[in-house]
Amino acid sequence: MHSETWSRDIARRVYGLEHSIRGDVLDIDEDGYLVIRLGDRSLRIRDLVKQFGFDLTYIRILPLISRAMMLVYETFNELIKATGYKGLLLPVYPMKVNPIPVVVESIFKYGEKYKWGFNTGSLGELQLLVSLAEKYSPRTLIYDGVFTEKVVEFLLKLHKLGWRVIVDVESEHDAEIVEKYPELEVGIRVKPITKPHGKWSDSAGLSSKFGLTMNTLIKIMDDFKWLKSRTVLLHMHPGSQISRFSDVRTYVKELRSVYEELLELGFENISMVDPGGGLAYPYLDVRDSEEESPDYSVIDYARLLISEFSKNHRNPDLVFEGGRFIVASHRILVTKVIDVRPYSAVKYKESTNTLHEYAEKIRSIRDAKTFLSRVRELLGELRSISEKDVKIRELYEDLIALVEDEISQRVSALLLTGDISISDVLGDNSILRIMTSPSKRFVLNMSIFADIPDSVLVDQYFQVIPVQGLNRQPEVLASLADITCDSMGEISHYISPGNLLNTRKPILTTVDSKLVAIPGTKLKLRGVPLTLPVKNEDYYIAILDTGAYQDTLAMKHNLIYGAPEIVIDVDEEGVSIRVVRNGEIRV
Amino acid sequence: MHSETWSRDIARRVYGLEHSIRGDVLDIDEDGYLVIRLGDRSLRIRDLVKQFGFDLTYIRILPLISRAMMLVYETFNELIKATGYKGLLLPVYPMKVNPIPVVVESIFKYGEKYKWGFNTGSLGELQLLVSLAEKYSPRTLIYDGVFTEKVVEFLLKLHKLGWRVIVDVESEHDAEIVEKYPELEVGIRVKPITKPHGKWSDSAGLSSKFGLTMNTLIKIMDDFKWLKSRTVLLHMHPGSQISRFSDVRTYVKELRSVYEELLELGFENISMVDPGGGLAYPYLDVRDSEEESPDYSVIDYARLLISEFSKNHRNPDLVFEGGRFIVASHRILVTKVIDVRPYSAVKYKESTNTLHEYAEKIRSIRDAKTFLSRVRELLGELRSISEKDVKIRELYEDLIALVEDEISQRVSALLLTGDISISDVLGDNSILRIMTSPSKRFVLNMSIFADIPDSVLVDQYFQVIPVQGLNRQPEVLASLADITCDSMGEISHYISPGNLLNTRKPILTTVDSKLVAIPGTKLKLRGVPLTLPVKNEDYYIAILDTGAYQDTLAMKHNLIYGAPEIVIDVDEEGVSIRVVRNGEIRV
Repeated sequence: MHSETWSRDIARRVYGLEHSIRGDVLDIDEDGYLVIRLGDRSLRIRDLVKQFGFDLTYIRILPLISRAMMLVYETFNELIKATGYKGLLLPVYPMKVNPIPVVVESIFKYGEKYKWGFNTGSLGELQLLVSLAEKYSPRTLIYDGVFTEKVVEFLLKLHKLGWRVIVDVESEHDAEIVEKYPELEVGIRVKPITKPHGKWSDSAGLSSKFGLTMNTLIKIMDDFKWLKSRTVLLHMHPGSQISRFSDVRTYVKELRSVYEELLELGFENISMVDPGGGLAYPYLDVRDSEEESPDYSVIDYARLLISEFSKNHRNPDLVFEGGRFIVASHRILVTKVIDVRPYSAVKYKESTNTLHEYAEKIRSIRDAKTFLSRVRELLGELRSISEKDVKIRELYEDLIALVEDEISQRVSALLLTGDISISDVLGDNSILRIMTSPSKRFVLNMSIFADIPDSVLVDQYFQVIPVQGLNRQPEVLASLADITCDSMGEISHYISPGNLLNTRKPILTTVDSKLVAIPGTKLKLRGVPLTLPVKNEDYYIAILDTGAYQDTLAMKHNLIYGAPEIVIDVDEEGVSIRVVRNGEIRV
Repeated sequence: MHSETWSRDIARRVYGLEHSIRGDVLDIDEDGYLVIRLGDRSLRIRDLVKQFGFDLTYIRILPLISRAMMLVYETFNELIKATGYKGLLLPVYPMKVNPIPVVVESIFKYGEKYKWGFNTGSLGELQLLVSLAEKYSPRTLIYDGVFTEKVVEFLLKLHKLGWRVIVDVESEHDAEIVEKYPELEVGIRVKPITKPHGKWSDSAGLSSKFGLTMNTLIKIMDDFKWLKSRTVLLHMHPGSQISRFSDVRTYVKELRSVYEELLELGFENISMVDPGGGLAYPYLDVRDSEEESPDYSVIDYARLLISEFSKNHRNPDLVFEGGRFIVASHRILVTKVIDVRPYSAVKYKESTNTLHEYAEKIRSIRDAKTFLSRVRELLGELRSISEKDVKIRELYEDLIALVEDEISQRVSALLLTGDISISDVLGDNSILRIMTSPSKRFVLNMSIFADIPDSVLVDQYFQVIPVQGLNRQPEVLASLADITCDSMGEISHYISPGNLLNTRKPILTTVDSKLVAIPGTKLKLRGVPLTLPVKNEDYYIAILDTGAYQDTLAMKHNLIYGAPEIVIDVDEEGVSIRVVRNGEIRV
């Protein structure tokens, strides 16, 4: 069932390699291997992983961090220059996004020329920052965590090293402590009233956890007279990953109006505005404003901020706090497939033949629907007795497996001949569901809880791509099970960005006859399109963009955790590759 | 606004201390302190925590583990004896529930007399088990993880120590490995077709991650002829925390029918049935079949299993795998309150007075609703312009705060005089929402991600209780914010088990006039009922039943993690208390 449309270009689009942040660093070579391209070097991921004998590894591509930093810096500064904006870009890296030393050192190192600063929110983060700070030039720190005397001790250490230290005051308790330390500059964090769409909308709004309402701010301002003159920063945070540009626009307008109100209230020394971390990272880069795919770029974001704050003659300095944007792309997880299991086997040969004969008669979508609804009725009856009668259950299992198989085969054949149209399939949920469901379960040597925790925590979408066989059309849809004893440890969705395709035919898997992609339509699949490993083949799967949050949110479910790392960097002498082993426990 | 109904007994009920597993181990003393009672000792939690100077600690009460084990063992064995059932109880502890050494050693130690076995699912768990096994008598192990040669190596180590080792075969790949090691007994894991209600329903069903469909089993059985005779165990798992007994009943019927089908298929040596871990732990013990509160006890569970399998003359041995039931109660988290913040302050005194005058005129629920709907209209208009105009926003903030306050005060006053009835309030969502909303935010020195991760991962309900002041009627409803820079790090729900109350009046907070409890009605509050700390008071809050899963699911968000522990045990010499410090990083 080859549709003969597969190509390297289509593979790039189906597997999300058309990407504005990663650019061409991830690519597919002539033999269908996933490669990392750095300068004129091209590293096959499969070779890298086999060379070290890892069944699971995190590959950290540090040049992707420097690439993102440069992108932000140049975007803002070109616009600042072009528009004559008088304020500066003040980039800071929020450590909570990824505080592991190799990442924080990369920010220090690559950020030297940009004076890239930091944002921290806990004593642990501060301690780590202080331990690294001496090796680099002083930066700006914005601290927005809870206050204790111990925290102040570390803040003052940075101040002694020549850092500019700005601390958010969020309560009377904070103000009482900060009052005693005149070397600390002050930030005011105000709750935004705008609630953007998406997972993190609770970060905003009047009852949100962080920041002050205007009236609480005014009360604290009355109680602590020194606050007005010491405040240099207005800080707001609209929630992470705002996917709709219209929400960002509303929010930035609000930010400016709060800024101007504070000036009017007498906060004369506010010279910096920090819009927080709302800039969305494109986990899939098709610009359609769905959760994983923002409808705007960092250029739109920078242009908006500069144009909005141009309306005030003071042109405040603009803080950039988009940590996810800077580090998400740098970590790629690569894991070996250790078992491939069928969803079900078939027992009764007779049922196969009868069903097959019926299915053969399907000529149109109407036939397919009639067939399906008749079998459904039968299945419903069998289902109700199969809990009690295991023989009936076996028949029931057979029928489910067979019906899915027959429908997939007939519908895909008729799709290719044109007897069934794409809109026929999209218009019928039962048939679409069958055409997008997996027939295999690949078992991966990883723990979703340890390696991509946001997948279970906030249902984060991560791009999956096999590291080999990309020159062949996918054979099956497969769900990906991890090795934890937890039913949540499974990936069974895949977003197929058909809107990027430049072919007119649907793409189908060649073995189980499922849908891979439909031109012009973004398709949510219930499994990942993959080729099947041949017997004894070392077969690896990569999960992209796992560089933000996943390192610290890692859980030790089933005592499965940790992974050896392959750290890739570029310096004067070219590409360097080193291996870092942590205290991992793995099968 | 005292309703004068508060008492120690009411406090026990409102704060969930009437509990079938914890029994009287947690109690309130005459002075309103939360205490741990062990034999004739009574330890005030507040004194314990202050004595060691901890702002955050996990208190582990190991006797609660032994208590739960004894409860299970005696329940089953009394019923076995009473009914003349010929099979045995074979209890095993699934290590994934909590694999930290102090817990696993407690299972070994307290389980010596019951021959309590283990269930493991990963190499890491096996390694830990092997490292502890030599010190104790041999047990039974059921291994249901992924197979590798390394796993087999550790399984054989246990076998050499005299353990009975049973391994689940779930695929052809597993069968190929197990074939080579005749010393391993075999378990067959079958997918249940029954899907119970609740969070873990995906653990069951034909497309679930674990187990075999009947037809796949039959196929593997045909391919690996030795399987039939080596299989001693039928294993199924219906999902965690089944809260409805009717679901358990359907599932156990299915289990028996699968068991009988396997016997018929020729699996003659199956002598053990493992129904998996569906037994629910009562996070709130009011028996109403809601997620946190199963409508059955371990006695009902044991009786069901024994009566169902009595129907087969073979009376197979029954495995008990309820790990949550055994260890959930043993860990109590105690954290200090480090800041108390208002939801909002009020700026314009004029609006206060006008609104207050209007509110004073409320005499009935109808008046309250009219008042609210008028203010709502106004709020709607203000809301739409407040994003752009900060002065309007200040007025808007004022109004929201004032309306909530005035409504709470008037409605609670009229509730106490009887001019408004309880059903009036329950019948109006807007008013009920105000009456159950917090007015304060308590900041706790903890991380929800590190300390009670299931709260964010699966929205798990954990019982919250202050450790002091329990002799005073709660003053406010408060949301509980942690110190992470994450909006998800907040607890803003509380289930008030009014069905346990033996008073007829509603109970209200004495400062912000919110609802605490309504007799006869389970009430979902949006904040926790608490007294206010007085200036400079060391004020602590306990979170109960955090002993299952929370230790391994702990995340290091913001680099806030780890806690010193107070481990309490009882031996011949009485109560022992020791402190264990891990590598924690805390403010």
